[in-house]
Amino acid sequence: MDTALPRTTSAVPFGEHDDSPHAALADSLAAGFALDAAERDRQGGVALAERNALRASGLLRLSVPRELGGPGASWPEILRIVRRFSEADSAVAHLFAFHHLQVASVLLWGSEDQARRLLGPVVSGQAFWGNAANGLDAHVRLIPDGSRYVLDGTKTFCSGASDSDTLLVTALRSPAAAERVAIVIPTRREGVKVLGDWDAFGQRQTDSGTVVFSRVAVKRDEVLLPGPQTSPRATLRTCLAQLILAEIYLGNARGALRSAWHYVHDEGRPNVAAGVDRILDDPYIARHFGDFRLAIRGATLLADSAHARLQAAWARGTALTAEERGRVAIEVSEARLASARAGLEVTSRIFETLGARSTATRHGLDRYWRNVRTHTLHDSLDYKLRDLGRWVLTGAAPEPGLYS
Amino acid sequence: MDTALPRTTSAVPFGEHDDSPHAALADSLAAGFALDAAERDRQGGVALAERNALRASGLLRLSVPRELGGPGASWPEILRIVRRFSEADSAVAHLFAFHHLQVASVLLWGSEDQARRLLGPVVSGQAFWGNAANGLDAHVRLIPDGSRYVLDGTKTFCSGASDSDTLLVTALRSPAAAERVAIVIPTRREGVKVLGDWDAFGQRQTDSGTVVFSRVAVKRDEVLLPGPQTSPRATLRTCLAQLILAEIYLGNARGALRSAWHYVHDEGRPNVAAGVDRILDDPYIARHFGDFRLAIRGATLLADSAHARLQAAWARGTALTAEERGRVAIEVSEARLASARAGLEVTSRIFETLGARSTATRHGLDRYWRNVRTHTLHDSLDYKLRDLGRWVLTGAAPEPGLYS
Amino acid sequence: MDTALPRTTSAVPFGEHDDSPHAALADSLAAGFALDAAERDRQGGVALAERNALRASGLLRLSVPRELGGPGASWPEILRIVRRFSEADSAVAHLFAFHHLQVASVLLWGSEDQARRLLGPVVSGQAFWGNAANGLDAHVRLIPDGSRYVLDGTKTFCSGASDSDTLLVTALRSPAAAERVAIVIPTRREGVKVLGDWDAFGQRQTDSGTVVFSRVAVKRDEVLLPGPQTSPRATLRTCLAQLILAEIYLGNARGALRSAWHYVHDEGRPNVAAGVDRILDDPYIARHFGDFRLAIRGATLLADSAHARLQAAWARGTALTAEERGRVAIEVSEARLASARAGLEVTSRIFETLGARSTATRHGLDRYWRNVRTHTLHDSLDYKLRDLGRWVLTGAAPEPGLYS
Amino acid sequence: MDTALPRTTSAVPFGEHDDSPHAALADSLAAGFALDAAERDRQGGVALAERNALRASGLLRLSVPRELGGPGASWPEILRIVRRFSEADSAVAHLFAFHHLQVASVLLWGSEDQARRLLGPVVSGQAFWGNAANGLDAHVRLIPDGSRYVLDGTKTFCSGASDSDTLLVTALRSPAAAERVAIVIPTRREGVKVLGDWDAFGQRQTDSGTVVFSRVAVKRDEVLLPGPQTSPRATLRTCLAQLILAEIYLGNARGALRSAWHYVHDEGRPNVAAGVDRILDDPYIARHFGDFRLAIRGATLLADSAHARLQAAWARGTALTAEERGRVAIEVSEARLASARAGLEVTSRIFETLGARSTATRHGLDRYWRNVRTHTLHDSLDYKLRDLGRWVLTGAAPEPGLYS
Repeated sequence: MDTALPRTTSAVPFGEHDDSPHAALADSLAAGFALDAAERDRQGGVALAERNALRASGLLRLSVPRELGGPGASWPEILRIVRRFSEADSAVAHLFAFHHLQVASVLLWGSEDQARRLLGPVVSGQAFWGNAANGLDAHVRLIPDGSRYVLDGTKTFCSGASDSDTLLVTALRSPAAAERVAIVIPTRREGVKVLGDWDAFGQRQTDSGTVVFSRVAVKRDEVLLPGPQTSPRATLRTCLAQLILAEIYLGNARGALRSAWHYVHDEGRPNVAAGVDRILDDPYIARHFGDFRLAIRGATLLADSAHARLQAAWARGTALTAEERGRVAIEVSEARLASARAGLEVTSRIFETLGARSTATRHGLDRYWRNVRTHTLHDSLDYKLRDLGRWVLTGAAPEPGLYS
Repeated sequence: MDTALPRTTSAVPFGEHDDSPHAALADSLAAGFALDAAERDRQGGVALAERNALRASGLLRLSVPRELGGPGASWPEILRIVRRFSEADSAVAHLFAFHHLQVASVLLWGSEDQARRLLGPVVSGQAFWGNAANGLDAHVRLIPDGSRYVLDGTKTFCSGASDSDTLLVTALRSPAAAERVAIVIPTRREGVKVLGDWDAFGQRQTDSGTVVFSRVAVKRDEVLLPGPQTSPRATLRTCLAQLILAEIYLGNARGALRSAWHYVHDEGRPNVAAGVDRILDDPYIARHFGDFRLAIRGATLLADSAHARLQAAWARGTALTAEERGRVAIEVSEARLASARAGLEVTSRIFETLGARSTATRHGLDRYWRNVRTHTLHDSLDYKLRDLGRWVLTGAAPEPGLYS
Repeated sequence: MDTALPRTTSAVPFGEHDDSPHAALADSLAAGFALDAAERDRQGGVALAERNALRASGLLRLSVPRELGGPGASWPEILRIVRRFSEADSAVAHLFAFHHLQVASVLLWGSEDQARRLLGPVVSGQAFWGNAANGLDAHVRLIPDGSRYVLDGTKTFCSGASDSDTLLVTALRSPAAAERVAIVIPTRREGVKVLGDWDAFGQRQTDSGTVVFSRVAVKRDEVLLPGPQTSPRATLRTCLAQLILAEIYLGNARGALRSAWHYVHDEGRPNVAAGVDRILDDPYIARHFGDFRLAIRGATLLADSAHARLQAAWARGTALTAEERGRVAIEVSEARLASARAGLEVTSRIFETLGARSTATRHGLDRYWRNVRTHTLHDSLDYKLRDLGRWVLTGAAPEPGLYS
Repeated sequence: MDTALPRTTSAVPFGEHDDSPHAALADSLAAGFALDAAERDRQGGVALAERNALRASGLLRLSVPRELGGPGASWPEILRIVRRFSEADSAVAHLFAFHHLQVASVLLWGSEDQARRLLGPVVSGQAFWGNAANGLDAHVRLIPDGSRYVLDGTKTFCSGASDSDTLLVTALRSPAAAERVAIVIPTRREGVKVLGDWDAFGQRQTDSGTVVFSRVAVKRDEVLLPGPQTSPRATLRTCLAQLILAEIYLGNARGALRSAWHYVHDEGRPNVAAGVDRILDDPYIARHFGDFRLAIRGATLLADSAHARLQAAWARGTALTAEERGRVAIEVSEARLASARAGLEVTSRIFETLGARSTATRHGLDRYWRNVRTHTLHDSLDYKLRDLGRWVLTGAAPEPGLYS
């Protein structure tokens, strides 16, 4: 294209700068992930090289508090890295974020002693944690067995279980099955089988498949105490999980915008009907980019606000009240809803600025929509919106639960 | 699911019945296409079995007029079959529709004698015609060469060229290159090379790749005369092509709704947050289905109206005026715009009624969105909408051209 | 404006022509209503001159069947007149339509003898009928009183009661109050008091205020028999009422587009930022008009389809089945939903093509939105959409009722 | 309503608290404005009592810097008060905001000496300033006349001119008419005639009518020097003006939500079709309120971010660069676009949660939409969005001008 667009800076679509200590490292990793993200999306399977790059980077330690020997990064710092990764490759971002979600679970649900012991390997080594905590799967039982327990059953949607070193598992405690408990065990323990059967059309390298537990031995102190849902603070785990979802959507929206920006600069051609020499002068193309920016900026500010609110609640420790926790949940809901909308809109509409040749599979530009579409189904956004409205009407935040 | 939904009839999402003579046969073929449409979408490549089923069905003869020995089906009849096929497999629908578009081109652009001669094999045999008429590719030249011509250059987006018997090619006539002409030649003629390089993320089995013409010999009477754009009637080709696009979108919307309907009946589970026993009683799920229906019904009526308008214009023959042709173009634009909107909305939003498990690749439910997203980029809908608005403001229909 | 837009025909925004026998008369009346519609909207109160023009026109007779001495116009004919009136003045259209709704009620709910007797004055004179049939107001009782009844209580939302000659009243029959009955009485009967207290921000001259019945004497044969809800046919009254609502919205959308079209032609100035000489060349303005057209066309086709479906059901007479009636209700719902959306969108967005000076109260252009906004609240569209979705999912049409 | 909604706090719809020093006073004034805002909207004309309340409150001094004897409130503080007033009565908010816009103009365009002299009466008394600076009206000329000037011509859209003490006027300097200059004069000066002819359907008490200047004498030092557009800093005036527009829209959205909240609590009745006892349990009503909140929160965060960006630029003084100013303009555009969308959506859709009785004119609930609809036409939002997109694509902020 002779009449090239000015390319003042690759940051233009967002015009932001993050000067937190780990941002530069994250940025460089993200650039690496982006190189073959489209190709790996086609292949599916386990992102081994990327997982190992994360191990080597030291960023898996970020969420471990200073008093336990970790860097004690704040949640806003970590979540901005999730966002940045997600722009490049939202499956890898998901794995990274869910690792930290499991670390957070130990901090929120376990004793101080458990935190010290279980998070030790995270600080000193390169342990990658996976998730086996899907709350809707009520099929895993923790059964007393003498001085210990056995774990039995099957979990689906176990993001990051493949190639993980450690698993966080939730189960119902037998015999009554009334209480949900959380257990931390090595993935390689006998009786644990990670099936590697994840095969959705989006978030393809998240390894969110099935894990089968066949009479897996569990020691007493591997059961986190006091456990989930035992205090307002303990229920922050759901808030963090939901906020990660928001960042996955937002990252895809931003990644789609960034890809569209580059495509327009590199290969964009003015529409025949536009009668202009430069694609920039096409009034509809420019307007679409304005829309994309607006949707993403609004969602970004809501997410940033929720980050801060979560961090403040986290800092309150055990003093956190149910009402304060409720306000975190409300802001997190807002961030998730706005990110989902921005994500679905931007990832589908970018094509209207790019034209038919942009659909070639080598570009892989449909993956942004496929990722958002898949991940926005995690739990119903219709009910999130209803709950937000109920809070507006009554002041009552949603009951803490699996998804709220 | 114990609390099963009533399944009064599979026709419920549409509540329509087509009693035109070929509808039952088309329906039966469509049912066959649907069986492995998701699988073939994953594979891409040429839909040989389906192409041969179409050859064997006799439906490739439909557009040949009675006076030429064909069944003389009306365009509304043929377009409703395109719609039905598109519900099941919009790539196959595209191949079927574009075959008839080439037949129409001979009727609109060629002499009576050419029509009789060139369409003979369509009536008597099982010829499948492909497209090499992308107007934006100005790279193919028709060069005088003694008593005949040679064709030289490359065309992209040649839908249905692979496995075709005959190609309709457009070229610029040398030396002036000012005039666009159309040529009908056998695909197997020496010098024609169909590359089979189509690899978009949607409409995957449409074989819309590249065809290279290397000094291909063309006889004088293979050049259609009087040719494209020579009368209001001749320009109806664009109207038909655009209306086919509308049916591709509409078919995907309908296919997505049909698939969603079956998924809800077969595998749908009430949302945890809904607090209802039957998914039917989820107020948000029901509302989404209402939205889908409304979008599809509106687009369907606009398409049906455009069908009738096109057929009336076709029946006017050479008496068709520019103004009458303009009204066809306006209605076709309306159908295409409304179908594109309905298509993009329904194919993305069905997932909000189905939940996370519906994203498994074995269901292949994302293909509807990928098909619509790819095909809606054929030419800019922004400018279609602008042209519609200009007509509202001034009464001037868009100039007949490649896309209007 | 020197660079005037071509003004080929005032019909351009719609491009339709209605050649039904009464269309020209309706058109001429509509043109008269339009002259001071904005001014009368500001004043509110009773549209006496317009009501008398309708009386004088003979169009109040239209719905009376030929066998009763009327012109026996079809419902599609009458509803297209409602649409045309509504473009000009949707309050007057409402009065006209509701008059015919009351006539229809006699035909649907009363005996043949009642129809002949009660509709006589409609044929021979200039009777204007009003509505006192709001079903949600359960405050009016029909109480046995010797050989006759007395009517007692208060009705709200009595459209067209002011200046009416005859009222259709619904009441609960005492003592059980379980049965809803319909009564036809002269408005001037002792004990009937029309308060004239309607004061909404839209549909201002519809006189939809309160009527108080203070021991009003009712003769036995003024109670329609067999009465409402007694057969599928009887419940068509709701379908007709809902379809009238659709036409009110659609008429306002069309009126708004027509007004915008004239404003752009008469006073439109190109936006400073557009850098064009003629407002027509503003790409955003043209696109908005494309959107308006598209929304209105889709809704118009749905309404036309519902007209035909209603008429076919009407023609079935007492043979009409519940299932056939259900399909009428579904199509009417679709028409109402699409018209409401088109109405709300177009009446608000026209201003984006007109600029700040178009908000001067002398133009009265906000009345279109106020009319649609007011009237779309007649009964909940959220539940209409849900019911449509339920029908898609189960094939079960909504139960016939006050609003469905 | 027996099944009353809990009414924990009137702040619930927003859940915010502003503890800036003047917030409590503003809140109390706003509560007063709200009492008869609907009534005054109907009347139109000049809001004398409210203007005098503002004079008496001391809040007209807020923008005068400390070094000039004023309170030196920050722009975020002042703009939050505009927002709060706008919730209650956006016409009064407009008058208040535009007063401060004129004060800002003196600070941005005048010399230090002029600022001290002209703003003296603002600090010491109760001067209310009005606007006669509509840039599109190129009809006012400043003509040299010996040692002074005369001002001649007509300005439209002069918000706040009625009952003002001082006017800021822009004019073209004769003879060349190439330079736009700003003049500050007493409104009562001979030759100034405020027509009071504002009569739009929204923002009714903003007195945005016509001012006629008939050979009005102007002293040399009443012409602000160096004047408009003379530096990046000088052009911040447009940013401030645009941000005020955003707050007007946002305030109406918030006012509409607040009114809807109260209406639902005071008069809300469950929909018949909902089958619930409490309106809160209507799933669609709750969802609408979720939508309202989400739209308003996103726009609020964008506006807050723009406030901070403007204040930072203001604090840079004459060191402000064109690029820094460009970033202010971009954020202000984002705030205005998002507020306009939220405003139009919320002010129209609240009715869907309130039902037909909410349209009674005594509630005056349509004024929110009328206000937003009128004021969003100030200058084209289509071009704002295009310019935002251009910045995304090229990094080039819009040229400083009348509206950007």
